[in-house]
Amino acid sequence: MKTIRQEFSVPFSYSVEFTENLFDPSNKLFAETVNPEHSGLKPNVLFVFDSGMYSCHPGLMNDITRYSNENNGSFSLVPEPVIIPGGERAKNDPGHVELIIDAIESADLDRHSYVAVIGGGAVTDTAGYAAAIAHRGIRLIRIPTTVLAQNDAAVGVKNGVNAYGKKNFLGTFTPPVAVLNDFSFLNTLSDRQWRAGISEAVKVALIKDRAFFEELEKNADALKLRDKDAMQSLIYRCAELHLEHISNSGDPFERGSSRPLDFGHWVAHKLEQLTDYRLLHGEAVAIGIVLDTIYSQLKGLISEEDCTRVIDLFRNCGFSLYVPELESNLEDPSDKQSVLHGLQEFREHLGGELTIMLLDRIGRGVEVHEVDLPLYRKAIDMLRSSEKELV
Amino acid sequence: MKTIRQEFSVPFSYSVEFTENLFDPSNKLFAETVNPEHSGLKPNVLFVFDSGMYSCHPGLMNDITRYSNENNGSFSLVPEPVIIPGGERAKNDPGHVELIIDAIESADLDRHSYVAVIGGGAVTDTAGYAAAIAHRGIRLIRIPTTVLAQNDAAVGVKNGVNAYGKKNFLGTFTPPVAVLNDFSFLNTLSDRQWRAGISEAVKVALIKDRAFFEELEKNADALKLRDKDAMQSLIYRCAELHLEHISNSGDPFERGSSRPLDFGHWVAHKLEQLTDYRLLHGEAVAIGIVLDTIYSQLKGLISEEDCTRVIDLFRNCGFSLYVPELESNLEDPSDKQSVLHGLQEFREHLGGELTIMLLDRIGRGVEVHEVDLPLYRKAIDMLRSSEKELV
Repeated sequence: MKTIRQEFSVPFSYSVEFTENLFDPSNKLFAETVNPEHSGLKPNVLFVFDSGMYSCHPGLMNDITRYSNENNGSFSLVPEPVIIPGGERAKNDPGHVELIIDAIESADLDRHSYVAVIGGGAVTDTAGYAAAIAHRGIRLIRIPTTVLAQNDAAVGVKNGVNAYGKKNFLGTFTPPVAVLNDFSFLNTLSDRQWRAGISEAVKVALIKDRAFFEELEKNADALKLRDKDAMQSLIYRCAELHLEHISNSGDPFERGSSRPLDFGHWVAHKLEQLTDYRLLHGEAVAIGIVLDTIYSQLKGLISEEDCTRVIDLFRNCGFSLYVPELESNLEDPSDKQSVLHGLQEFREHLGGELTIMLLDRIGRGVEVHEVDLPLYRKAIDMLRSSEKELV
Repeated sequence: MKTIRQEFSVPFSYSVEFTENLFDPSNKLFAETVNPEHSGLKPNVLFVFDSGMYSCHPGLMNDITRYSNENNGSFSLVPEPVIIPGGERAKNDPGHVELIIDAIESADLDRHSYVAVIGGGAVTDTAGYAAAIAHRGIRLIRIPTTVLAQNDAAVGVKNGVNAYGKKNFLGTFTPPVAVLNDFSFLNTLSDRQWRAGISEAVKVALIKDRAFFEELEKNADALKLRDKDAMQSLIYRCAELHLEHISNSGDPFERGSSRPLDFGHWVAHKLEQLTDYRLLHGEAVAIGIVLDTIYSQLKGLISEEDCTRVIDLFRNCGFSLYVPELESNLEDPSDKQSVLHGLQEFREHLGGELTIMLLDRIGRGVEVHEVDLPLYRKAIDMLRSSEKELV
C-alpha cells in the first residue's frame, strides 16, 4: 500500500507592544488584546504573578480588578491570581506548574481563554509551559517585568521548566498571543536585575549588529545610572533583533543543531547551576559571553582590541565577570561540577553535532563544531587574572 | 514605540507507512526512518511498549535487538523498553508520563533521538506527550497496533493524557516524524479491539465519503469475520481521510471552535468516563455516532432510511449500541453524571461557541451551534427501545 505523505504549514503571528501603565483604565491595550472584536462572549482571563514583582506592586490585583470593571464587557477576570516565586526557583519546583494547571482547571479555562502572566522570564516561562499543555494550549499573554524578560526571554516562542537539574528539560515551542512590555515595571527593579538584562542586548549586538554594540558603548554610563530612555531603546532594539532572528532563521522551533542566539549560554547555563542560581541569568550570560569572546580571540578570530571593548562594555555597565565556580574541577570536562561539562549538556539539549557560536568580529558570529579545551582553560585563567587586577 | 509584529510559518511533514513484520531484519523501513541519510552519528532510540501488546508479542524486544544488530550502524538502541498499561489506564495515571520522561533523561536522549512507541492509541498518546515536552520535543515514531490507532488515533497531530477526570486535559499538538502501520499486529487483537476501530471509519465515511460508507456496508460481514484484506482497506482509507482533513482544514492545531472529526465524540468521551472506561473508545464512538444520527433524523436532517442504514452497519459489524449509563440523570444536563453534561465538557475543551457535527445525509456532515435537549432524550429513548427489540 502506498505511503501517505502528510504535509502542512502552521502560521504563527503575535504582536510585541510597548506601553506604560498597562492597567490604567484609560489604557485600552490589554482589553483590545484579549477581545479585539469586542465579542459579547467575554473570554476568561487568569493572571499569574511573580511574587517578587507583586511585592513591589501590592496594589496590582486591585488595579486589574478596577481595569476589568471599567472595561466592562471585554473580559471576565478570574478573581484570584496564581502567585509563584520569581527567579529560577519558579522553574525548579514542579509544584508551580501544577498550581497554575489547577487554577486553569478550577476556572474552567478553555482554548479561547487567556493566561496572562506578569513577571520575570522564569515566571513567564513557567506559566507559558502550563498554558501550553492545558487543553493542548490556552492562549498566553506575556507581560514581562524585567529587562531580560522584555528584551529576550518573554518575546520568543519557547517556554520551559527545569527538571533533573537540567535547565529547560521540560517545555514546548508555543508562541504567545501577545507580549505587552510595560516599561513602568522597570522602575522597581533592583540594580542587579536592571543590569542583568543588559547582557542579552550585548549578546545579540555582538553576533548581529555592530551599530547597536556601538550605541550600547555610548550609553553604558547612562544605563548604569538607570536612564530610562537609554534602557527603553536597548530593550526595543534587542527584542527586535531576537524576533527578526526567530522569523528569519528558517528554524523557529530549533530542529537543527544551531542556536546562534545562545552565544555565551553554554557557560551561562552551567554557571547558574554550579552557583545554585546565586547568579542571575543575565549575570551568568555576561560571564559566558566574555569567556567565549576571549576564547574567540585566542583562536585568532576577533582582534585583541575588540575583545577588550567587549570586556570594557560589561565593566562599564557594572558587571562582575568572574566567579570561583569557573575553576571547579576544570581539568575534568566529564565531571558535572566542571564548567566544561556544560559543553556536553548544551549539545545534548538539541542533539546532533556540537555547535557553538564564537565571534569573528564585533557584529558577526561564526559557528564552530569543536572546541580546544586547554584554550578554554587559558581563557578562564586570563579572565580571573584580569578581574583580580581590577580589585 | 512602534509595535513589533512577529509572523512566521512552521512546515510539518511526515509519512504514514503500511507494512508487515516491521522488525524482520530484512525489512529496512524502520532503519531508513530513523536514519534516512545513513549518518555515522547513530541516533538513540528508546522504545515504549503497550503491556497488552507486549503480552501478545513477548519476543518483540528480542526481535528489535536482533533487528538493531543486523542493521548495525543505523541506530543505537536503548536496551530497556518502557512498558506501560494499554487502554485508557495509560492516560489516567500521571506516573506513566513520568516513567517515560525518566527513561528519556536516563538514556540522555536529545532532540535528534527518537521515542518509538508500539501499542494502542492510549499508549501512543501518552508516549507522544512525554516525547513532546522533553527537551521541547524528542522525535516521535508511532507504531500503532490496534485498528483504531492505525486508522485514527495515531496518524494525526495530537497527543495527550487525562487529568481531573477530563479526557486529554493535558497534551500538545506535535506531529510525529513517521507513523509505521504494521498490519501483522492486528492478528493478535481481541474481537472487541478488532471491531472497536471500525467505528472511526464509519464516522469519517459518514461525514466525508459516501462511497467509503457503501464499501463498509458491503464489507460488514467480512469485517466481522476478521477478513484481513477488508480491514487493511478500511484502515488505509480511514487514515487517508483523517490525514486529508488535517492538512486541508486550514486549522490543523484546532484554534477555532470546530472539530468535525469529532462527530459522535461528545457522547463517546462522556460515556467512556461514565462507564469508568469499561467501554473501549471505539465502542463508545459507535454509540455516540448512532445517537447523533438518530438526533439528526429527528431534527429533519438525514432521512429515516439512511439513519437505519447507519444503525444496521454497526449491528452487522457486531456492535452493541446501548449502555444503561446513557440514561443516568438524563433530566439534569448540569449534573456530571448525565451524558448530556458531555455537551458542556466538549465545548469547554476547545472553548468558543458550542459546535456539534450532525449528518445532513450519508457522506455529508453539517455543523450546528445549539441542541434541543428534549429531542436528545427522545433519541436515547428510541435507541434503547430499538436495542431491546433486538434481544
